[in-house]
Amino acid sequence: MEFQNIFPFWEELNERERTLVSGGVLSQKMKKGDILHRGCGECSGIVHVAQGQLRVYIVSEEGREVTLYRLHQGELCVLSASCLMDAIVFDVLIEAVQDSELVVLPSPVLSDVMHGNPLVELSLYKRVVENFSDVMWTMQQILFMGADRRVAHFLWDEMAKTGDTTIHLTHEEVARFIGSAREVVTKVLKYFVEEGTVALSRGKIEIIDKEKLRSYL
Amino acid sequence: MEFQNIFPFWEELNERERTLVSGGVLSQKMKKGDILHRGCGECSGIVHVAQGQLRVYIVSEEGREVTLYRLHQGELCVLSASCLMDAIVFDVLIEAVQDSELVVLPSPVLSDVMHGNPLVELSLYKRVVENFSDVMWTMQQILFMGADRRVAHFLWDEMAKTGDTTIHLTHEEVARFIGSAREVVTKVLKYFVEEGTVALSRGKIEIIDKEKLRSYL
Repeated sequence: MEFQNIFPFWEELNERERTLVSGGVLSQKMKKGDILHRGCGECSGIVHVAQGQLRVYIVSEEGREVTLYRLHQGELCVLSASCLMDAIVFDVLIEAVQDSELVVLPSPVLSDVMHGNPLVELSLYKRVVENFSDVMWTMQQILFMGADRRVAHFLWDEMAKTGDTTIHLTHEEVARFIGSAREVVTKVLKYFVEEGTVALSRGKIEIIDKEKLRSYL
Repeated sequence: MEFQNIFPFWEELNERERTLVSGGVLSQKMKKGDILHRGCGECSGIVHVAQGQLRVYIVSEEGREVTLYRLHQGELCVLSASCLMDAIVFDVLIEAVQDSELVVLPSPVLSDVMHGNPLVELSLYKRVVENFSDVMWTMQQILFMGADRRVAHFLWDEMAKTGDTTIHLTHEEVARFIGSAREVVTKVLKYFVEEGTVALSRGKIEIIDKEKLRSYL
Protein backbone atom coordinates (compact mmCIF):
# COMPACT_ATOMS: atom_id res chain seq x y z
CA MET A 1 0.00 0.00 0.00
CA GLU A 2 1.27 3.49 -0.83
CA PHE A 3 0.58 5.15 2.49
CA GLN A 4 1.79 8.57 1.38
CA ASN A 5 -1.07 8.65 -1.15
CA ILE A 6 -3.64 7.47 1.40
CA PHE A 7 -2.88 9.55 4.49
CA PRO A 8 -2.09 13.26 3.98
CA PHE A 9 -0.10 13.27 7.26
CA TRP A 10 2.21 10.38 6.31
CA GLU A 11 5.22 12.66 5.79
CA GLU A 12 4.77 14.08 9.32
CA LEU A 13 5.01 10.67 11.04
CA ASN A 14 8.10 9.28 12.76
CA GLU A 15 9.16 5.63 12.42
CA ARG A 16 7.16 4.44 15.43
CA GLU A 17 4.01 6.16 14.18
CA ARG A 18 4.45 4.79 10.66
CA THR A 19 4.72 1.28 12.07
CA LEU A 20 1.54 1.82 14.11
CA VAL A 21 -0.39 3.10 11.09
CA SER A 22 0.83 0.50 8.59
CA GLY A 23 0.15 -2.28 11.10
CA GLY A 24 -3.26 -0.90 12.03
CA VAL A 25 -5.02 -0.39 8.67
CA LEU A 26 -7.83 -2.70 7.64
CA SER A 27 -9.45 -3.39 4.28
CA GLN A 28 -13.22 -3.28 4.13
CA LYS A 29 -15.64 -4.04 1.30
CA MET A 30 -19.05 -2.42 1.17
CA LYS A 31 -22.06 -3.14 -1.01
CA LYS A 32 -24.03 -0.32 -2.63
CA GLY A 33 -26.45 0.99 0.02
CA ASP A 34 -24.45 -0.20 3.05
CA ILE A 35 -24.17 2.37 5.84
CA LEU A 36 -20.62 3.05 7.04
CA HIS A 37 -21.45 5.60 9.73
CA ARG A 38 -24.71 6.40 11.46
CA GLY A 39 -23.89 9.61 13.35
CA CYS A 40 -23.94 9.79 17.10
CA GLY A 41 -21.83 7.25 18.96
CA GLU A 42 -20.18 5.48 16.05
CA CYS A 43 -16.52 6.00 15.37
CA SER A 44 -14.98 3.80 12.73
CA GLY A 45 -11.87 5.95 12.19
CA ILE A 46 -10.69 7.58 8.98
CA VAL A 47 -11.56 5.91 5.70
CA HIS A 48 -9.78 6.04 2.35
CA VAL A 49 -11.91 5.25 -0.72
CA ALA A 50 -9.78 2.82 -2.77
CA GLN A 51 -12.67 1.96 -5.10
CA GLY A 52 -16.25 3.19 -5.38
CA GLN A 53 -18.00 6.17 -3.87
CA LEU A 54 -19.39 7.29 -0.49
CA ARG A 55 -22.15 9.81 0.22
CA VAL A 56 -22.20 11.99 3.36
CA TYR A 57 -25.71 13.14 4.25
CA ILE A 58 -28.12 14.32 6.93
CA VAL A 59 -31.69 13.18 7.62
CA SER A 60 -34.56 15.14 9.17
CA GLU A 61 -36.89 13.69 11.80
CA GLU A 62 -39.42 13.16 9.00
CA GLY A 63 -36.88 11.15 7.01
CA ARG A 64 -35.97 13.79 4.42
CA GLU A 65 -32.36 13.35 3.27
CA VAL A 66 -29.92 15.97 2.03
CA THR A 67 -26.58 14.98 0.53
CA LEU A 68 -23.76 17.21 1.82
CA TYR A 69 -20.99 15.91 -0.42
CA ARG A 70 -19.61 12.75 -1.96
CA LEU A 71 -16.23 11.07 -1.58
CA HIS A 72 -14.71 9.64 -4.73
CA GLN A 73 -11.91 7.18 -5.35
CA GLY A 74 -8.67 8.37 -3.75
CA GLU A 75 -10.38 10.65 -1.22
CA LEU A 76 -10.20 10.46 2.56
CA CYS A 77 -13.30 10.51 4.79
CA VAL A 78 -12.63 12.02 8.23
CA LEU A 79 -16.14 12.68 9.61
CA SER A 80 -16.28 8.94 10.38
CA ALA A 81 -13.70 9.76 13.09
CA SER A 82 -15.66 12.72 14.49
CA CYS A 83 -15.62 11.21 18.01
CA LEU A 84 -11.90 12.00 18.15
CA MET A 85 -12.42 15.63 17.13
CA ASP A 86 -14.02 17.74 19.87
CA ALA A 87 -14.87 20.68 17.62
CA ILE A 88 -17.31 18.57 15.56
CA VAL A 89 -20.68 18.64 17.28
CA PHE A 90 -23.01 17.54 14.51
CA ASP A 91 -23.97 14.15 13.15
CA VAL A 92 -23.92 12.86 9.62
CA LEU A 93 -24.60 9.54 7.95
CA ILE A 94 -22.26 7.97 5.42
CA GLU A 95 -23.29 5.31 2.93
CA ALA A 96 -21.73 3.53 -0.05
CA VAL A 97 -23.49 4.64 -3.25
CA GLN A 98 -21.53 2.05 -5.26
CA ASP A 99 -19.90 -1.23 -4.30
CA SER A 100 -16.76 0.11 -2.62
CA GLU A 101 -13.38 -0.95 -1.30
CA LEU A 102 -12.14 1.01 1.68
CA VAL A 103 -8.90 1.30 3.65
CA VAL A 104 -9.76 2.03 7.28
CA LEU A 105 -7.48 3.36 10.01
CA PRO A 106 -9.49 2.44 13.12
CA SER A 107 -10.10 4.99 15.90
CA PRO A 108 -7.89 3.43 18.60
CA VAL A 109 -4.78 3.53 16.37
CA LEU A 110 -5.68 6.95 14.99
CA SER A 111 -6.27 8.31 18.48
CA ASP A 112 -2.84 7.12 19.59
CA VAL A 113 -1.04 8.74 16.63
CA MET A 114 -3.16 11.90 16.70
CA HIS A 115 -2.66 12.71 20.36
CA GLY A 116 1.09 12.33 20.12
CA ASN A 117 1.48 14.41 16.97
CA PRO A 118 -0.37 17.74 16.51
CA LEU A 119 0.46 17.76 12.78
CA VAL A 120 -1.77 14.70 12.35
CA GLU A 121 -4.60 16.44 14.16
CA LEU A 122 -4.03 19.58 12.06
CA SER A 123 -4.13 17.56 8.86
CA LEU A 124 -7.47 15.99 9.85
CA TYR A 125 -9.01 19.32 10.88
CA LYS A 126 -7.90 20.80 7.55
CA ARG A 127 -9.68 17.97 5.77
CA VAL A 128 -12.86 18.70 7.75
CA VAL A 129 -12.62 22.36 6.71
CA GLU A 130 -12.29 21.29 3.06
CA ASN A 131 -15.53 19.36 3.56
CA PHE A 132 -17.02 22.50 5.14
CA SER A 133 -16.23 24.24 1.85
CA ASP A 134 -18.11 21.48 -0.03
CA VAL A 135 -21.08 21.85 2.32
CA MET A 136 -21.14 25.62 1.80
CA TRP A 137 -21.31 25.02 -1.94
CA THR A 138 -24.18 22.55 -1.50
CA MET A 139 -26.00 24.95 0.81
CA GLN A 140 -25.76 27.77 -1.71
CA GLN A 141 -27.12 25.44 -4.39
CA ILE A 142 -30.07 24.50 -2.21
CA LEU A 143 -30.80 28.00 -0.96
CA PHE A 144 -30.19 30.10 -3.98
CA MET A 145 -30.79 27.98 -7.05
CA GLY A 146 -34.12 26.97 -8.56
CA ALA A 147 -34.89 23.26 -8.81
CA ASP A 148 -34.50 23.25 -12.62
CA ARG A 149 -30.99 24.65 -12.42
CA ARG A 150 -30.06 22.20 -9.67
CA VAL A 151 -31.25 19.20 -11.69
CA ALA A 152 -29.47 20.53 -14.78
CA HIS A 153 -26.24 21.06 -12.83
CA PHE A 154 -26.46 17.57 -11.40
CA LEU A 155 -27.00 15.92 -14.82
CA TRP A 156 -24.21 18.01 -16.34
CA ASP A 157 -21.75 17.05 -13.58
CA GLU A 158 -22.68 13.37 -13.83
CA MET A 159 -22.12 13.42 -17.59
CA ALA A 160 -18.78 15.20 -17.15
CA LYS A 161 -17.69 12.71 -14.50
CA THR A 162 -18.64 9.48 -16.27
CA GLY A 163 -18.24 10.66 -19.88
CA ASP A 164 -21.58 8.94 -20.54
CA THR A 165 -24.74 10.75 -21.70
CA THR A 166 -26.90 8.07 -20.04
CA ILE A 167 -27.30 8.45 -16.30
CA HIS A 168 -28.37 5.33 -14.46
CA LEU A 169 -30.29 6.81 -11.57
CA THR A 170 -33.94 6.95 -10.51
CA HIS A 171 -35.72 10.27 -9.86
CA GLU A 172 -35.68 9.37 -6.16
CA GLU A 173 -31.87 9.01 -6.25
CA VAL A 174 -31.40 12.30 -8.12
CA ALA A 175 -33.66 14.02 -5.56
CA ARG A 176 -31.57 12.65 -2.72
CA PHE A 177 -28.35 13.85 -4.32
CA ILE A 178 -29.58 17.41 -4.85
CA GLY A 179 -31.50 17.66 -1.57
CA SER A 180 -34.93 17.93 -3.13
CA ALA A 181 -38.15 15.87 -3.28
CA ARG A 182 -38.79 13.14 -5.87
CA GLU A 183 -41.91 14.95 -7.09
CA VAL A 184 -39.90 18.09 -7.82
CA VAL A 185 -37.26 16.17 -9.78
CA THR A 186 -39.94 14.32 -11.77
CA LYS A 187 -41.60 17.65 -12.64
CA VAL A 188 -38.33 19.21 -13.76
CA LEU A 189 -37.38 16.12 -15.81
CA LYS A 190 -40.79 16.12 -17.54
CA TYR A 191 -40.17 19.72 -18.49
CA PHE A 192 -36.74 18.77 -19.84
CA VAL A 193 -38.38 15.96 -21.91
CA GLU A 194 -40.89 18.41 -23.40
CA GLU A 195 -38.00 20.70 -24.30
CA GLY A 196 -36.18 17.82 -26.02
CA THR A 197 -33.26 18.00 -23.57
CA VAL A 198 -33.47 14.50 -22.10
CA ALA A 199 -35.28 11.21 -22.68
CA LEU A 200 -36.49 9.06 -19.79
CA SER A 201 -36.81 5.33 -19.36
CA ARG A 202 -36.95 3.09 -16.30
CA GLY A 203 -34.03 3.95 -13.99
CA LYS A 204 -32.30 5.93 -16.75
CA ILE A 205 -32.00 9.55 -17.85
CA GLU A 206 -30.50 10.09 -21.31
CA ILE A 207 -29.16 13.50 -22.27
CA ILE A 208 -30.06 14.09 -25.91
CA ASP A 209 -29.29 17.80 -26.28
CA LYS A 210 -26.17 18.88 -24.40
CA GLU A 211 -26.36 22.49 -25.57
CA LYS A 212 -29.90 22.84 -24.27
CA LEU A 213 -28.88 21.28 -20.97
CA ARG A 214 -25.99 23.71 -20.73
CA SER A 215 -28.41 26.62 -21.25
CA TYR A 216 -30.07 25.82 -17.90
CA LEU A 217 -26.82 26.01 -15.92
CA MET B 1 -5.68 43.06 28.00
CA GLU B 2 -6.12 39.48 29.17
CA PHE B 3 -4.71 37.72 26.15
CA GLN B 4 -5.38 34.23 27.49
CA ASN B 5 -9.12 35.02 27.35
CA ILE B 6 -8.90 36.47 23.85
CA PHE B 7 -6.73 34.02 21.95
CA PRO B 8 -7.34 30.28 22.56
CA PHE B 9 -3.74 29.54 21.53
CA TRP B 10 -2.12 31.95 24.03
CA GLU B 11 -0.89 29.10 26.27
CA GLU B 12 0.89 27.52 23.29
CA LEU B 13 2.99 30.60 22.49
CA ASN B 14 6.63 31.12 23.47
CA GLU B 15 7.94 34.47 24.76
CA ARG B 16 8.86 35.81 21.32
CA GLU B 17 5.43 34.91 19.92
CA ARG B 18 3.64 36.49 22.90
CA THR B 19 5.56 39.71 22.35
CA LEU B 20 4.61 39.69 18.67
CA VAL B 21 0.92 39.15 19.41
CA SER B 22 0.64 41.64 22.29
CA GLY B 23 2.51 44.26 20.23
CA GLY B 24 0.45 43.56 17.11
CA VAL B 25 -3.17 43.76 18.31
CA LEU B 26 -5.34 46.72 17.33
CA SER B 27 -8.60 48.04 18.73
CA GLN B 28 -11.35 48.77 16.24
CA LYS B 29 -14.81 50.28 16.73
CA MET B 30 -17.64 49.49 14.35
CA LYS B 31 -21.06 51.04 13.93
CA LYS B 32 -24.15 48.88 13.51
CA GLY B 33 -24.33 47.90 9.85
CA ASP B 34 -20.60 48.34 9.11
CA ILE B 35 -19.08 45.53 7.06
CA LEU B 36 -15.94 43.97 8.55
CA HIS B 37 -15.24 41.44 5.82
CA ARG B 38 -16.52 41.22 2.26
CA GLY B 39 -15.37 37.74 1.18
CA CYS B 40 -12.87 37.24 -1.57
CA GLY B 41 -9.59 39.09 -1.28
CA GLU B 42 -10.03 40.71 2.11
CA CYS B 43 -8.05 39.47 5.05
CA SER B 44 -8.27 41.50 8.22
CA GLY B 45 -6.95 38.77 10.53
CA ILE B 46 -8.67 37.22 13.54
CA VAL B 47 -11.15 39.34 15.44
CA HIS B 48 -12.23 39.12 19.09
CA VAL B 49 -15.63 40.63 19.93
CA ALA B 50 -15.00 42.72 23.08
CA GLN B 51 -18.44 44.40 22.88
CA GLY B 52 -21.38 44.02 20.51
CA GLN B 53 -22.23 41.36 17.98
CA LEU B 54 -21.15 40.27 14.49
CA ARG B 55 -23.14 38.37 11.89
CA VAL B 56 -21.51 35.97 9.39
CA TYR B 57 -23.62 35.53 6.25
CA ILE B 58 -23.73 34.68 2.56
CA VAL B 59 -25.51 36.49 -0.28
CA SER B 60 -26.89 35.08 -3.52
CA GLU B 61 -26.41 36.76 -6.90
CA GLU B 62 -29.96 38.09 -6.54
CA GLY B 63 -29.10 39.66 -3.18
CA ARG B 64 -30.80 37.13 -0.92
CA GLU B 65 -28.97 36.87 2.41
CA VAL B 66 -28.68 33.91 4.75
CA THR B 67 -27.16 34.28 8.20
CA LEU B 68 -24.80 31.37 8.97
CA TYR B 69 -24.11 32.23 12.62
CA ARG B 70 -23.50 35.16 14.94
CA LEU B 71 -20.50 36.01 17.11
CA HIS B 72 -21.28 37.36 20.57
CA GLN B 73 -19.21 39.20 23.13
CA GLY B 74 -16.12 37.19 24.08
CA GLU B 75 -16.09 35.11 20.88
CA LEU B 76 -13.34 34.90 18.27
CA CYS B 77 -14.00 35.32 14.54
CA VAL B 78 -11.54 33.41 12.36
CA LEU B 79 -13.18 33.41 8.92
CA SER B 80 -11.94 37.01 8.58
CA ALA B 81 -8.46 35.40 8.31
CA SER B 82 -9.53 32.84 5.70
CA CYS B 83 -6.79 33.96 3.30
CA LEU B 84 -4.26 32.37 5.68
CA MET B 85 -6.11 29.05 5.74
CA ASP B 86 -5.82 27.10 2.48
CA ALA B 87 -8.58 24.65 3.28
CA ILE B 88 -11.24 27.41 3.28
CA VAL B 89 -12.42 27.92 -0.28
CA PHE B 90 -15.69 29.76 0.25
CA ASP B 91 -16.55 33.38 0.88
CA VAL B 92 -18.64 34.95 3.59
CA LEU B 93 -19.53 38.47 4.62
CA ILE B 94 -19.26 39.71 8.19
CA GLU B 95 -21.10 42.76 9.52
CA ALA B 96 -21.65 44.40 12.89
CA VAL B 97 -25.29 44.00 13.93
CA GLN B 98 -24.73 46.27 16.94
CA ASP B 99 -22.21 49.01 17.64
CA SER B 100 -19.17 46.87 18.45
CA GLU B 101 -15.67 47.03 19.87
CA LEU B 102 -13.21 44.59 18.40
CA VAL B 103 -9.68 43.42 19.15
CA VAL B 104 -7.97 42.56 15.86
CA LEU B 105 -4.82 40.53 15.34
CA PRO B 106 -3.89 41.58 11.78
CA SER B 107 -2.98 39.00 9.14
CA PRO B 108 0.76 39.77 8.82
CA VAL B 109 1.37 39.19 12.55
CA LEU B 110 -0.96 36.20 12.65
CA SER B 111 0.72 34.70 9.59
CA ASP B 112 4.14 34.99 11.24
CA VAL B 113 3.00 33.31 14.47
CA MET B 114 0.88 30.70 12.70
CA HIS B 115 3.55 29.47 10.34
CA GLY B 116 6.09 29.04 13.10
CA ASN B 117 3.75 27.20 15.46
CA PRO B 118 1.43 24.43 14.23
CA LEU B 119 -0.54 24.55 17.51
CA VAL B 120 -1.74 28.05 16.56
CA GLU B 121 -2.85 26.82 13.17
CA LEU B 122 -4.56 23.82 14.80
CA SER B 123 -6.39 26.11 17.23
CA LEU B 124 -7.71 28.27 14.37
CA TYR B 125 -8.80 25.27 12.28
CA LYS B 126 -10.63 23.89 15.32
CA ARG B 127 -12.46 27.19 15.65
CA VAL B 128 -13.49 27.00 11.97
CA VAL B 129 -14.82 23.49 12.58
CA GLU B 130 -16.86 24.78 15.54
CA ASN B 131 -18.35 27.32 13.13
CA PHE B 132 -18.98 24.46 10.70
CA SER B 133 -21.07 22.89 13.47
CA ASP B 134 -23.05 26.13 13.80
CA VAL B 135 -23.61 26.22 10.05
CA MET B 136 -24.83 22.63 10.03
CA TRP B 137 -27.36 23.57 12.70
CA THR B 138 -28.53 26.55 10.64
CA MET B 139 -28.75 24.42 7.52
CA GLN B 140 -30.92 21.85 9.27
CA GLN B 141 -33.18 24.65 10.50
CA ILE B 142 -33.57 26.01 6.99
CA LEU B 143 -34.00 22.67 5.28
CA PHE B 144 -36.07 20.75 7.73
CA MET B 145 -38.12 23.22 9.74
CA GLY B 146 -41.25 25.06 8.68
CA ALA B 147 -41.14 28.85 8.63
CA ASP B 148 -43.47 29.14 11.66
CA ARG B 149 -41.17 27.04 13.81
CA ARG B 150 -38.13 28.99 12.62
CA VAL B 151 -39.68 32.35 13.49
CA ALA B 152 -40.82 30.99 16.87
CA HIS B 153 -37.33 29.62 17.61
CA PHE B 154 -35.77 32.93 16.68
CA LEU B 155 -38.12 34.98 18.91
CA TRP B 156 -37.65 32.52 21.77
CA ASP B 157 -33.85 32.70 21.51
CA GLU B 158 -33.88 36.50 21.31
CA MET B 159 -36.05 36.70 24.43
CA ALA B 160 -33.81 34.25 26.27
CA LYS B 161 -30.70 36.19 25.29
CA THR B 162 -31.87 39.69 26.13
CA GLY B 163 -34.30 38.83 28.95
CA ASP B 164 -36.72 41.22 27.27
CA THR B 165 -40.11 40.22 25.81
CA THR B 166 -39.94 43.11 23.33
CA ILE B 167 -37.75 42.45 20.32
CA HIS B 168 -36.59 45.54 18.48
CA LEU B 169 -36.28 44.20 14.96
CA THR B 170 -38.14 44.70 11.68
CA HIS B 171 -39.65 41.79 9.76
CA GLU B 172 -36.92 42.30 7.18
CA GLU B 173 -34.24 41.88 9.86
CA VAL B 174 -35.89 38.75 11.29
CA ALA B 175 -36.10 37.31 7.77
CA ARG B 176 -32.40 37.93 7.25
CA PHE B 177 -31.50 36.25 10.52
CA ILE B 178 -33.47 33.08 9.79
CA GLY B 179 -32.64 32.92 6.07
CA SER B 180 -36.18 33.52 4.85
CA ALA B 181 -38.10 36.19 2.91
CA ARG B 182 -39.73 39.22 4.56
CA GLU B 183 -43.13 38.21 3.16
CA VAL B 184 -42.87 34.82 4.85
CA VAL B 185 -41.95 36.33 8.22
CA THR B 186 -44.79 38.86 7.97
CA LYS B 187 -47.25 36.06 7.23
CA VAL B 188 -46.06 33.97 10.17
CA LEU B 189 -46.13 36.99 12.54
CA LYS B 190 -49.71 37.85 11.45
CA TYR B 191 -50.67 34.30 12.31
CA PHE B 192 -48.98 34.67 15.72
CA VAL B 193 -50.94 37.93 16.29
CA GLU B 194 -54.22 36.19 15.49
CA GLU B 195 -53.31 33.46 17.95
CA GLY B 196 -52.57 36.06 20.64
CA THR B 197 -48.91 35.06 20.83
CA VAL B 198 -47.32 38.37 19.88
CA ALA B 199 -48.29 42.02 19.31
CA LEU B 200 -46.71 44.09 16.54
CA SER B 201 -45.84 47.74 16.26
CA ARG B 202 -43.38 49.66 14.11
CA GLY B 203 -39.93 48.01 14.38
CA LYS B 204 -41.02 45.97 17.41
CA ILE B 205 -42.34 42.50 18.15
CA GLU B 206 -43.75 42.00 21.64
CA ILE B 207 -44.18 38.51 23.01
CA ILE B 208 -47.43 38.45 25.00
CA ASP B 209 -47.94 34.72 25.54
CA LYS B 210 -44.70 32.85 26.21
CA GLU B 211 -46.38 29.47 26.68
CA LYS B 212 -48.06 29.72 23.30
CA LEU B 213 -44.77 30.73 21.70
CA ARG B 214 -43.11 27.75 23.33
CA SER B 215 -45.77 25.46 21.84
CA TYR B 216 -44.49 26.26 18.32
CA LEU B 217 -40.91 25.21 19.09
